[in-house]
Amino acid sequence: MIIGLFDSGVGGLTVLRELKNELHGVEFIYLGDTARLPYGNKAPETLRQYTNENLKFLDDKKVGAVVVACHSASSVVLGMEKSPAGAPLFNVIGPSCDEAIKSSATKKVGVLATKATTRSRVYPNYIEHLAPDIQVFSQEAPLLVPLVEEALLDDPITRLAIERYLTPMKNQGVDTIILGCTHYPILQGPIADFCGPHIRLIDPARSVAQVIKQQLKWEPGSEGLKVFLTDHSPHFIAHGKSLLGDMLESQILHP
Amino acid sequence: MIIGLFDSGVGGLTVLRELKNELHGVEFIYLGDTARLPYGNKAPETLRQYTNENLKFLDDKKVGAVVVACHSASSVVLGMEKSPAGAPLFNVIGPSCDEAIKSSATKKVGVLATKATTRSRVYPNYIEHLAPDIQVFSQEAPLLVPLVEEALLDDPITRLAIERYLTPMKNQGVDTIILGCTHYPILQGPIADFCGPHIRLIDPARSVAQVIKQQLKWEPGSEGLKVFLTDHSPHFIAHGKSLLGDMLESQILHP
Repeated sequence: MIIGLFDSGVGGLTVLRELKNELHGVEFIYLGDTARLPYGNKAPETLRQYTNENLKFLDDKKVGAVVVACHSASSVVLGMEKSPAGAPLFNVIGPSCDEAIKSSATKKVGVLATKATTRSRVYPNYIEHLAPDIQVFSQEAPLLVPLVEEALLDDPITRLAIERYLTPMKNQGVDTIILGCTHYPILQGPIADFCGPHIRLIDPARSVAQVIKQQLKWEPGSEGLKVFLTDHSPHFIAHGKSLLGDMLESQILHP
Repeated sequence: MIIGLFDSGVGGLTVLRELKNELHGVEFIYLGDTARLPYGNKAPETLRQYTNENLKFLDDKKVGAVVVACHSASSVVLGMEKSPAGAPLFNVIGPSCDEAIKSSATKKVGVLATKATTRSRVYPNYIEHLAPDIQVFSQEAPLLVPLVEEALLDDPITRLAIERYLTPMKNQGVDTIILGCTHYPILQGPIADFCGPHIRLIDPARSVAQVIKQQLKWEPGSEGLKVFLTDHSPHFIAHGKSLLGDMLESQILHP
């Protein structure tokens, strides 16, 4: 079976990494829309158009399942269970919310996300719909993506930003925090240091990988990874290597 | 006369602001390619394609001059003196370099820029070609754009980032620093605080406005501003208002 994923850039590679760890005998196709990244600041109509184009690309590759490995694009496909060609469709929002609902004893859940995801209210809407007794504390954390991109993982600037963003929800008494952007799990170490042992951090990439493992049935076959990018991106290749080791095959599509 | 400008997003508005201050009796058309921002991380071929499309858009509006109000796109048009339709073409790199060459007594010039601009070596190549006795110290400063976007202008995180980026060139003895990204002049205050009184900061938006004022001849006529965006962008509108006051007219083009 082939599983197709897309993201605007490197962020979704954290999702790919989890899928590769959990699912065996599967081929992966990863589409990075680097010519139009980032998605987080695009309007919903524009994002819907890009998402449809990406789904069509993956459908044309005869994928057996699609994972929208981008929080912004996931908000556009929330509620869609199939791709246009009928492949089961997964997003990174639903599974992490379900896990947070199960996890929280204080009934107070924090969501750390980009500005666009936060403003869309997609996380609180989803959680409060399923579990009206849970209070959701959202915090936009726009500096964390550039800090990850700069690999400032153990740095006073990063610690200052994490403290700034997480102090309000910590003071509110959350016991569960969703890391609502594909870049944030890379900062899991310094975030956990700040949060201490009584707050559980949820990585949506792990949540969706678990859900797919449980729900999807396939005959294990050959393994492999093909990466398609809409623009040349040395940045993508460098991050890809550091996250995944050697990339098996990559190809540039013209935007 | 109509002067056309383009940038990927809001950054070029600092250039527009300087042009509006210096040039009277002129209409402005500003194109913000918000559907494909930022340009700083795109490949040269992709950037060239986007630049050509933007120049054609402005040429079709019968502009009398074009200003490429983006450092990344300026590197693509360096050496081009006319738009495809023959309008005089200005970029934000040349004028600031000329000014830095005149300004530096220590013959040591610093250039603070985005990662892409720094890696392109466009500033040191330009300066060292015209003034081989000048040493150029380049520093990429990727966190400054998100810090400006977050309006963290007077903030410990910003001061820490400025100190981090500027300490090496200050230690090298530069007496002139080019703020080589349209966002950076907004941080002129905290950057000047760190640099002290013996380092001159050059804002390329001011340099290009001075050059246009000297070189371009026109009959003063009506004034106005039309803004075209390739994507809806509340962010652009908010920044636009804070930089320019009321925007006269804006229109969304479909990407």
